[in-house]
Amino acid sequence: MEFSSKLLERAVNEMSQLPGIGKRTALRLVLHMLRQPKEQTTALSEALQTMRNDVKFCKSCHNISDVELCEICSNPNRIENTICVVEDVRDVMAIENTSSYKGLYHVLGGKISPMDGIGPHDLNVESLVKKVKEGKVKELIFALSSTMEGDTTNFYIYKQIQDYEILTSTIARGISVGDELEYADEITLGRSIINRIPFETSLKL
Amino acid sequence: MEFSSKLLERAVNEMSQLPGIGKRTALRLVLHMLRQPKEQTTALSEALQTMRNDVKFCKSCHNISDVELCEICSNPNRIENTICVVEDVRDVMAIENTSSYKGLYHVLGGKISPMDGIGPHDLNVESLVKKVKEGKVKELIFALSSTMEGDTTNFYIYKQIQDYEILTSTIARGISVGDELEYADEITLGRSIINRIPFETSLKL
Repeated sequence: MEFSSKLLERAVNEMSQLPGIGKRTALRLVLHMLRQPKEQTTALSEALQTMRNDVKFCKSCHNISDVELCEICSNPNRIENTICVVEDVRDVMAIENTSSYKGLYHVLGGKISPMDGIGPHDLNVESLVKKVKEGKVKELIFALSSTMEGDTTNFYIYKQIQDYEILTSTIARGISVGDELEYADEITLGRSIINRIPFETSLKL
Repeated sequence: MEFSSKLLERAVNEMSQLPGIGKRTALRLVLHMLRQPKEQTTALSEALQTMRNDVKFCKSCHNISDVELCEICSNPNRIENTICVVEDVRDVMAIENTSSYKGLYHVLGGKISPMDGIGPHDLNVESLVKKVKEGKVKELIFALSSTMEGDTTNFYIYKQIQDYEILTSTIARGISVGDELEYADEITLGRSIINRIPFETSLKL
């Protein structure tokens, strides 16, 4: 791609570093900015830079926060000894949106993935194991993706903490609400039959 | 969407102002930046802001440029009196990539679209008509999108300059190279038969 301006080229190149944004999309976005008031680009640039420089990670759960201890960890109404282990910040937001969980979180910051060169030491596993060792945890809920990497990560953590007397659980796997049965894969369908729940319980959900 | 950090929220909101980028995509991009070195976000922010503040539009053809008169307009090897009228900067890049055009360009900056509230006065039409009036143009090539808006814009410009003795042409409409005939729409196929070219000519392309 030949650019008529070095400034444009640099902006497009930087923009296309972002995942899922190729050169063409980057160009479209940058040209859009040129049609908008300068203030909009200034606001975007400043917001990104301030965010990158000043955002903190909660010292307890590693969730993104503006303060040392995030709002969830410092909320006295949350159940302190129940910890939901998630992959990243988006999962915290997704679970919070359901309003069905009152415990705390632990953000791993990824999952074990040898293919991508991510081992347990790249994740916030140690601080989680420490919490368990210190007797702060009664129940650990694994809420990772139902993939090979997610299962590996679950198992790795489980091995580290299996000698401590805590409850461990994983979120239910089953047919998504609204899904047609005929399109469900065999493993999901199989598990949903094995892990069936009393009909009366399902009525209350 | 509930954010655990105001800084994160502001970055996501600004990012999602861009076309085709919703809140979820914006969040994904912003979280990606947090995993990358700070320098990368700084480079992106600076590139965008410098581009927005310092980029110029060529005073002759309105193409994006770092200098007053763009590289194409100031190139003595280009055919000065042939002007290709395009919608935006991307079209200049696309045509330049083909290496099959040696004239100059005129970037309208959009096309007439009453639905979007874009009239002829929002586009660089006046400066184009001025060039024609001053006798600087021998041939005008319309290279706008083959849509209702593109055709309207072509026609509007044509009406302004039809009294001057210049050649006007539009780029050929026809079957794309590599296309199966059975999937071509009727209008395109019809036009491609009416505007057929000598076989010997096609061999030379």
